[in-house]
Amino acid sequence: MAGPGAGLLRALRGARGRGWGSAAGGWAGLRGRPDKYGGVSVELPQCQPRPRRRERAAFGRWLRASVAQWQEEGRVAVWLHVPILQSGLAAVAASQGFAFHHAESGSATLMRWLGEGPSRLPGYATHQLGVAGAVLDENAGKVLVVQDRNKTVNAWKFPGGLSNPGEDIGDTAVREVFEETGIKSEFKSILSIRQQHQHPGAFGKSDMYIICRLEPSSFNINFCQQECLRCEWMDLDELARTKHATPITSNVAKLLLYGYREGFDKIDITMREFPAVYTGRFYKLYHRELPESYRNMT
Amino acid sequence: MAGPGAGLLRALRGARGRGWGSAAGGWAGLRGRPDKYGGVSVELPQCQPRPRRRERAAFGRWLRASVAQWQEEGRVAVWLHVPILQSGLAAVAASQGFAFHHAESGSATLMRWLGEGPSRLPGYATHQLGVAGAVLDENAGKVLVVQDRNKTVNAWKFPGGLSNPGEDIGDTAVREVFEETGIKSEFKSILSIRQQHQHPGAFGKSDMYIICRLEPSSFNINFCQQECLRCEWMDLDELARTKHATPITSNVAKLLLYGYREGFDKIDITMREFPAVYTGRFYKLYHRELPESYRNMT
Repeated sequence: MAGPGAGLLRALRGARGRGWGSAAGGWAGLRGRPDKYGGVSVELPQCQPRPRRRERAAFGRWLRASVAQWQEEGRVAVWLHVPILQSGLAAVAASQGFAFHHAESGSATLMRWLGEGPSRLPGYATHQLGVAGAVLDENAGKVLVVQDRNKTVNAWKFPGGLSNPGEDIGDTAVREVFEETGIKSEFKSILSIRQQHQHPGAFGKSDMYIICRLEPSSFNINFCQQECLRCEWMDLDELARTKHATPITSNVAKLLLYGYREGFDKIDITMREFPAVYTGRFYKLYHRELPESYRNMT
Repeated sequence: MAGPGAGLLRALRGARGRGWGSAAGGWAGLRGRPDKYGGVSVELPQCQPRPRRRERAAFGRWLRASVAQWQEEGRVAVWLHVPILQSGLAAVAASQGFAFHHAESGSATLMRWLGEGPSRLPGYATHQLGVAGAVLDENAGKVLVVQDRNKTVNAWKFPGGLSNPGEDIGDTAVREVFEETGIKSEFKSILSIRQQHQHPGAFGKSDMYIICRLEPSSFNINFCQQECLRCEWMDLDELARTKHATPITSNVAKLLLYGYREGFDKIDITMREFPAVYTGRFYKLYHRELPESYRNMT
């Protein structure tokens, strides 16, 4: 009778034209793909049924034999991509010295270092990115501030939140400001960057928090009742002096006031866009304004 | 006879004082821990042996019953922490709608959203951080540059590399410069920040690349032969004009030349340290220099 893992075997047999019955079972047809760093990468096939004990044992034998061969070939690392429904195989690999590198949604990537000395394999993403927007109404000298609904201390802060995957810094600021306050705005510059490690809200990873200077294009507040307790246009001078703000908000308010009075060129970290070496992509570079004479020198 | 999963059952029985034999098997003693966001979190016990089929089935029944109960209690999310050797249980959870949130080393975290509408669960770290150091010898007007050993195009660049987990931006710059070139230096400021998405070397995550201004405290180059093909002190003016540099290096060299000639206050993004709200921790905030009169205003 076909067990829950039979589909996996069929998939392997079908895809690779190899029969269950060789020393390593249906896994024998599976090949590692060498990478340019001297490693080898294996994608385990995506199948609905979960692997049974007999298949896990066969996978274990195949993996042991394959690793021995890769070692002989001088490969320094093995990457194993395991679909979540085949997670039982991750346990088998773990018993042979593999560990998680990362996992996301329906797939985990395990690794094992085969080279000499300690592992030189690169780590995984270490930072989450939060972005806030300091929206300054230059005509009125007022800046948009909020108070969180769910905090015990009522401190004024700039609206903001976590970047979505693949989202540019300025876009996060504009989106978050709109979602929280209903105010539309445009990115002008970066004002400050904070780095903080072992961040409680970041699953122990590091947090980077960037505050941008934004220019409003609408002024009627319609704030998110779920997130905010209060939201208002506050005198920039008042925000710079109030004790009811976090040190970061307070510092950036003073910085903004300095720029507002004496010129934004004193405080701005501006943005330029460049084509990436990878075709069709662009990246954004933020630095102090460079005079034309320097920018065009050759 | 005790199968490979018997230890897991014993561990559960021992730890919770509950026998295998209740409807959900040995899992019945396992309790979820509510979190302050309306979710519930479950740590599966760490045991050496891998769970067998009968235990996976019992776990599946326990999880289904527990989720139903958490749903009834109005919980909006479930987090499941699974040791790598118990990965078979991740597959069971996946068949009930759980997915990977993240995994690292010996443990995976799965999640399932129970609340209304689309998931509001926070994502995992989205960025890796690379830092380079532009070490400027002010007396000689020379800057430290390297060429990678393993690149097809021989472009001059600043030495640098990926931040280690928990490492401050300036510390990465100083460490990487020393490891690659043997030059000792001190952090002065941030000069530029680049953000690039779907970075090939970042497992599809985003890359943030920061260049710092460093001041050398040693001058004899002893470069890493594995990483670098060439390493030298180059006239800053020459680096700013050469075509043999990437756009970023070229731009930052021009920026540095501008600061060198007309004052570093024109280019620097300086650092201040503050105590974090979490006891005993500090964070670093980078922004434009704030005049004393503004800094101390109340």
